[in-house]
Amino acid sequence: MFNKDNVKRAKLLISCPEKPGIISTVSNFLSEHNANIVQFDQHTTDPQAGMFFMRIEFELTDFDSSYKELEQDFHVLAQDYSLEWQLSSEKKKKVAIFVSKGDHCLMELIWRWKSNELNVDIPMVISNHADLKEVVEGFGIPFYHIPISPQTKPEAEKKALELLKGKVDLIVLARYMQILSPNFISHYPNQIINIHHSFLPAFVGANPYVRAFNRGVKLIGATAHYVTNDLDEGPIIQQDVLRVNHRYTAEDLKVAGRQVERTVLAQAVSWHVEDKVMVHGNKTIVFT
Amino acid sequence: MFNKDNVKRAKLLISCPEKPGIISTVSNFLSEHNANIVQFDQHTTDPQAGMFFMRIEFELTDFDSSYKELEQDFHVLAQDYSLEWQLSSEKKKKVAIFVSKGDHCLMELIWRWKSNELNVDIPMVISNHADLKEVVEGFGIPFYHIPISPQTKPEAEKKALELLKGKVDLIVLARYMQILSPNFISHYPNQIINIHHSFLPAFVGANPYVRAFNRGVKLIGATAHYVTNDLDEGPIIQQDVLRVNHRYTAEDLKVAGRQVERTVLAQAVSWHVEDKVMVHGNKTIVFT
Amino acid sequence: MFNKDNVKRAKLLISCPEKPGIISTVSNFLSEHNANIVQFDQHTTDPQAGMFFMRIEFELTDFDSSYKELEQDFHVLAQDYSLEWQLSSEKKKKVAIFVSKGDHCLMELIWRWKSNELNVDIPMVISNHADLKEVVEGFGIPFYHIPISPQTKPEAEKKALELLKGKVDLIVLARYMQILSPNFISHYPNQIINIHHSFLPAFVGANPYVRAFNRGVKLIGATAHYVTNDLDEGPIIQQDVLRVNHRYTAEDLKVAGRQVERTVLAQAVSWHVEDKVMVHGNKTIVFT
Amino acid sequence: MFNKDNVKRAKLLISCPEKPGIISTVSNFLSEHNANIVQFDQHTTDPQAGMFFMRIEFELTDFDSSYKELEQDFHVLAQDYSLEWQLSSEKKKKVAIFVSKGDHCLMELIWRWKSNELNVDIPMVISNHADLKEVVEGFGIPFYHIPISPQTKPEAEKKALELLKGKVDLIVLARYMQILSPNFISHYPNQIINIHHSFLPAFVGANPYVRAFNRGVKLIGATAHYVTNDLDEGPIIQQDVLRVNHRYTAEDLKVAGRQVERTVLAQAVSWHVEDKVMVHGNKTIVFT
Repeated sequence: MFNKDNVKRAKLLISCPEKPGIISTVSNFLSEHNANIVQFDQHTTDPQAGMFFMRIEFELTDFDSSYKELEQDFHVLAQDYSLEWQLSSEKKKKVAIFVSKGDHCLMELIWRWKSNELNVDIPMVISNHADLKEVVEGFGIPFYHIPISPQTKPEAEKKALELLKGKVDLIVLARYMQILSPNFISHYPNQIINIHHSFLPAFVGANPYVRAFNRGVKLIGATAHYVTNDLDEGPIIQQDVLRVNHRYTAEDLKVAGRQVERTVLAQAVSWHVEDKVMVHGNKTIVFT
Repeated sequence: MFNKDNVKRAKLLISCPEKPGIISTVSNFLSEHNANIVQFDQHTTDPQAGMFFMRIEFELTDFDSSYKELEQDFHVLAQDYSLEWQLSSEKKKKVAIFVSKGDHCLMELIWRWKSNELNVDIPMVISNHADLKEVVEGFGIPFYHIPISPQTKPEAEKKALELLKGKVDLIVLARYMQILSPNFISHYPNQIINIHHSFLPAFVGANPYVRAFNRGVKLIGATAHYVTNDLDEGPIIQQDVLRVNHRYTAEDLKVAGRQVERTVLAQAVSWHVEDKVMVHGNKTIVFT
Repeated sequence: MFNKDNVKRAKLLISCPEKPGIISTVSNFLSEHNANIVQFDQHTTDPQAGMFFMRIEFELTDFDSSYKELEQDFHVLAQDYSLEWQLSSEKKKKVAIFVSKGDHCLMELIWRWKSNELNVDIPMVISNHADLKEVVEGFGIPFYHIPISPQTKPEAEKKALELLKGKVDLIVLARYMQILSPNFISHYPNQIINIHHSFLPAFVGANPYVRAFNRGVKLIGATAHYVTNDLDEGPIIQQDVLRVNHRYTAEDLKVAGRQVERTVLAQAVSWHVEDKVMVHGNKTIVFT
Repeated sequence: MFNKDNVKRAKLLISCPEKPGIISTVSNFLSEHNANIVQFDQHTTDPQAGMFFMRIEFELTDFDSSYKELEQDFHVLAQDYSLEWQLSSEKKKKVAIFVSKGDHCLMELIWRWKSNELNVDIPMVISNHADLKEVVEGFGIPFYHIPISPQTKPEAEKKALELLKGKVDLIVLARYMQILSPNFISHYPNQIINIHHSFLPAFVGANPYVRAFNRGVKLIGATAHYVTNDLDEGPIIQQDVLRVNHRYTAEDLKVAGRQVERTVLAQAVSWHVEDKVMVHGNKTIVFT
């Protein structure tokens, strides 16, 4: 008898060099494992010699037993076809938020999490300042204050890595005003999302609003991207802009920009935790 | 030996009640016919009991011989699985444009056609006024002036239908200020695109800019939709808006709105002729 | 000696039937009262026989003594010229928020108030449900639960009016799911702002997201407007939209729409409390 | 007797270091000259010690006689107050268009000119290629083909300057793929508008669409700015963006971008010829 409670969703992400028949191979596999595809997205950078990306969301009956078998069998198929892949069940992703003093991006994420708009767990918030301790703990989220100076940075990062170890699937830099070291980043490849307060690559680096004011732009923007060793050069996940005019002071731009920062970061995080983002070199494929 | 010139693209659109395994069945079929999928889009209205929509763009070697066989074989498969389907080769769609006196939407379409941005043939322009005869013929496009009065409408439509018969795949109403009869529409189901100068369903009917002015809206818009017997109620393909303020007179709204009308109509026509639009009841699925 | 601390800003709003020389009259008046104009906005609906609207933001030295005199003198001038006018000092406006169960608009306003982005005092939140009592009181804001049924409505409104009396300059309906009576509204003409979850006048009335879903629109929107006796027909202050596609369920539209509702309402409230909105019949002039 | 035909509009632009009473001085002046202000815009960069900008649109009865007197008198006032100013009657501005091979921006300007949306005369089009000669002359606009090579550039610019001399108020570079020399630019300060195919300052320089593709941006844009000696660094008049995704090839970005380029350039030109743009250092004040 059909038991709806036992039907659960899973998501399969695949990338490989373009090869004919890959869609039929994978869809046959899922069909044979009684997986019912409910959403299918695909991208080919070049049908002749490019890279192939695929995201499949499927429903599985008798999930708990079926999922394990499907995972094991797919492991074999993936080896045969040299696929890179990732299989995710409906389990919530664990997200650590890094923040400094500005709370607008942090609060947006927390607000969406509280409203069940963002399907995550937030095991911890880490900050180089103590300012937001009370407000974070007020939501029942552990808050760790790890001060950073140029001298203590290696030690501070070590401490953070220990706190994070095994506990998080994603780190979100919600206006965290420190640059992470290559060593730190190497532990979380394509698993650290930063929000930059400009429409990158305009105004790479510090003080983008002041520079936007000085340049007299008519649009200000924000960019959510994965963090790599090249500052502000990682794969862009989402960008948006806001119209401004000559009446905006540099301070006005900063205040207005918060709105775009909040939205852009929340969208990027939401897409990441729904496994809708795939990275290809320095770019992203976002299946929305 | 591989002859790149013989590799051509085709597009397969499929819709059917949701049934498990449909993706694997169709992708197997294409694989067996040496078709290489280059773009795959899919939509399910409800995984349990909804409708399933699929658009597949594929490359075929030795196109001229392979395409015919593939078409015949798919006919059999479609019957077995009760699929509704449409297979299109790269052949340009033939588009007739209906226009009255305002030329901005007409000129946008012609400009994009001249620039090879719109991959169509334009076998004719039909108008209830003679005003645009010279400009249309200047582009080498046949222009037919068919005046319409309440008395002559049936006859006028009959004349238009005769001109169109067998010659067009799509009719675009580029600010054509006449309402087509149900009889006329029945000849071109989901093959007539109209541009309405409001963000429907606001301001259904006549004079939307004057009514937008009177209502004091802060955004004006335009809507491209398929024409059905219910005025301004057909499936929406594309919509967009433009910010305005208290300084705009009704006439200013009209002038500003032309910009949105042009863009929205051109996008909708472009998606239609690339077989990216599927109709489901009173809605569209647009695979962009 | 110049004491910068004693320099404060004030705002003068004026409307009158169009008459030549009004700008020079008023600017002379301000000049003579040592007021330095820092922002000047003006709108004429028709230079021949329309209405004239003006907003002047000015700085005044020795504010406390000068302001009173300026106000008294302007009273005389206004009578001579039959001007409608409003003079506001920098005093924060007092805003009461009405809410039902959905907290997204409420939280956006509170968040901006906490961040000093919204320059107001919030003396109270009134709700027909008790759900948000704890969260509101957590911010130190008095919360009043006034349940409403068809039978108790007159009494409930009476109670609310008593709580509000003399204590508020603006009422914001932040997703308050009750219709206010003409009697209630008459106490706060153009001082009640509502957020409607559609781009009015599309989907006037209830359940706009479900109706937007059924109509298959490609944009959803939100509208902030002053409340009048005609439901959803009051002067529009701000509107915005968000692009959606065929993948959005009615529930997805609702969730996505929250984002637009929040932003649009916060902008409208912010413009109102900065005296940037003037009402003309059923329309607004917004000096941004 | 009132003769409406003799009522005409003029526009007065003023800039000066911030000084108290300037608005009342100028509005008194206009009042005394029977000028009726119909639109008034003002901007102060800093009320204490900044620059003051003002745009006044006014109606004048018995225009032909009054205008001359008003102009002479204002000359005196401007000297007394050290104002920079510009007075324009309704006379159409003369615009020369420079173009290379791509015709989309050119055609947009011509189309708006033909539709009376752009209130200008177009005395000539100058191109370094002959490709667009026929289409331009088809509109009755003189076309001058001035080829340019590194060797002939000084001579070519000399030839262009001779053609332009005394005949144009504005030069529009409608995708003109040559860099003008400082000498050429010095003849038309803040009178040359260029369209750059990126949201400057991102992708300053050549091939912005290829670089946008390589960077994986999610928005592409266009920027209209005045030309200065610093390439792509002149005062920005207008910018806009368009959302793109991973499916866009570099070529797709280029085609999609044309739409934004056309709109942004046409808006900037339209604002310039309506005297709505004032330049302040490297920025613009745009009174829209």
